[in-house]
Amino acid sequence: MREEATAFVPGHVTGFFSTHPDEDPTKAGSRGAGLTLTDGVEVTIEPATESTIVLDGEEIEVDPVTTVLETLDASARVEADSDLPIGAGFGVSGALTLGTALAVNRVFERKLSMNELVTIAHGAEVQAGTGLGDVVAQAHGGVPIRLEPGGPQDNKLDAIPTRARIEYVSFGELSTADVLSGDTDQLTAAGKEALSRVVEEPTLLSFMYASRLFARDAELLTERVIETIADVSAAEGQASMAMLGETVFALGTGLSDAGYEPSVCTTHPAGAVLK
Amino acid sequence: MREEATAFVPGHVTGFFSTHPDEDPTKAGSRGAGLTLTDGVEVTIEPATESTIVLDGEEIEVDPVTTVLETLDASARVEADSDLPIGAGFGVSGALTLGTALAVNRVFERKLSMNELVTIAHGAEVQAGTGLGDVVAQAHGGVPIRLEPGGPQDNKLDAIPTRARIEYVSFGELSTADVLSGDTDQLTAAGKEALSRVVEEPTLLSFMYASRLFARDAELLTERVIETIADVSAAEGQASMAMLGETVFALGTGLSDAGYEPSVCTTHPAGAVLK
Repeated sequence: MREEATAFVPGHVTGFFSTHPDEDPTKAGSRGAGLTLTDGVEVTIEPATESTIVLDGEEIEVDPVTTVLETLDASARVEADSDLPIGAGFGVSGALTLGTALAVNRVFERKLSMNELVTIAHGAEVQAGTGLGDVVAQAHGGVPIRLEPGGPQDNKLDAIPTRARIEYVSFGELSTADVLSGDTDQLTAAGKEALSRVVEEPTLLSFMYASRLFARDAELLTERVIETIADVSAAEGQASMAMLGETVFALGTGLSDAGYEPSVCTTHPAGAVLK
Repeated sequence: MREEATAFVPGHVTGFFSTHPDEDPTKAGSRGAGLTLTDGVEVTIEPATESTIVLDGEEIEVDPVTTVLETLDASARVEADSDLPIGAGFGVSGALTLGTALAVNRVFERKLSMNELVTIAHGAEVQAGTGLGDVVAQAHGGVPIRLEPGGPQDNKLDAIPTRARIEYVSFGELSTADVLSGDTDQLTAAGKEALSRVVEEPTLLSFMYASRLFARDAELLTERVIETIADVSAAEGQASMAMLGETVFALGTGLSDAGYEPSVCTTHPAGAVLK
């Protein structure tokens, strides 16, 4: 057994999605598209007599991380440092979950393949209701398009072949679980339309356009988000809302140009990696 | 139209493979596994009245690159810098082909998706007989396992979740086209056995072991390669032969420990990327 291992998992901002429930959590998931980010989460795993999860110095409970530890039969201290706010649509729980799977596999020499680890992490997220598509996107990197839902055995991914500077501001949390437990018919219809638009023209501009229409049609916009996107548009920039958080992301210098003081990163060229 | 764009494509060393012909070059390909490398090829595309391909300052002809330029209806100067020797089993032709597809798509605004570009590049390589699995591996990054052959619409990939320092020495070229045009029954049988070994235990050590058995059973080893692998084994290292080149690669400091002066890199965490 190694003493410890560290994985980096990029953040993931979903622009639009549609939900696809299934009794088997490794087959359930979402279609959609998003941006993986160089701002992400670093997860270090160390064997311990009792499992604990510490995020940015604070002990927390994260159900899917606990599930992964149990599935991989590992008792460990999970220590994570995040560049990103929690619950604001950046896939932090997916990053914690996938990073734990990767680093536990290494420390405890579980000899699982990448697809097996992604399946375990994806299933744990779906089961916990904390995410439907972040894990598979974060394992892929770049600007992934999720054409078919589920874990690696079932899903189908493509990507927009690009790299871009991304800015974001976050005003607060939205509960993924709350939105997903409500009526999702309208959201799913809007998500399907957005996806066909991006499949037809897989460019960043078309992704941003589809994301804005989705946020409006799925009725997920808040007042502050509407205002911020309008400010960016007025400055001739491209912005939309992160699913699901009270967060606005923009291409290039969109938010700076509109007078905001955003966090700045770029799309992440790789999926989750061991360090 | 942009003035130019640059893509970086990692090198790819195949440890073992089996060939899978098909009338459709986007469905044909190989199963197998290999290492993508931080040593790779940088490809810059600039519109030009006549297409030319320049590698490390020298004008050359590369059939699959020409095919990609024609398929994407682009007349361009392709300027490439390679860290790797040509024809020695590092996937340089695949890198040139995929890098051209990615950078042309950006410069000429062809608005194709990543899968579409990989399909075009993979099909061009297969058609030219220059490679069967490099392009899809180089688009994936890491340590890809090619479970099913063909382009992204048909294939199935997994990966060994790891990162490693890699050393290599190259003694010369082997013609991929010559080997693939000969009797490949024995090679295919050895490739299938190696793959099932790595699927059962997806670790680097098992990959190196399966690769060595494959090189022996497929009768592809040369005298110098046999000797070098033996030297690394004697120094308690792990080495095998790159498919297809007179090249030996080793984990960690395997070749240095055996007294060689190898090139040094690491596995590449990402697939091909625009810079």
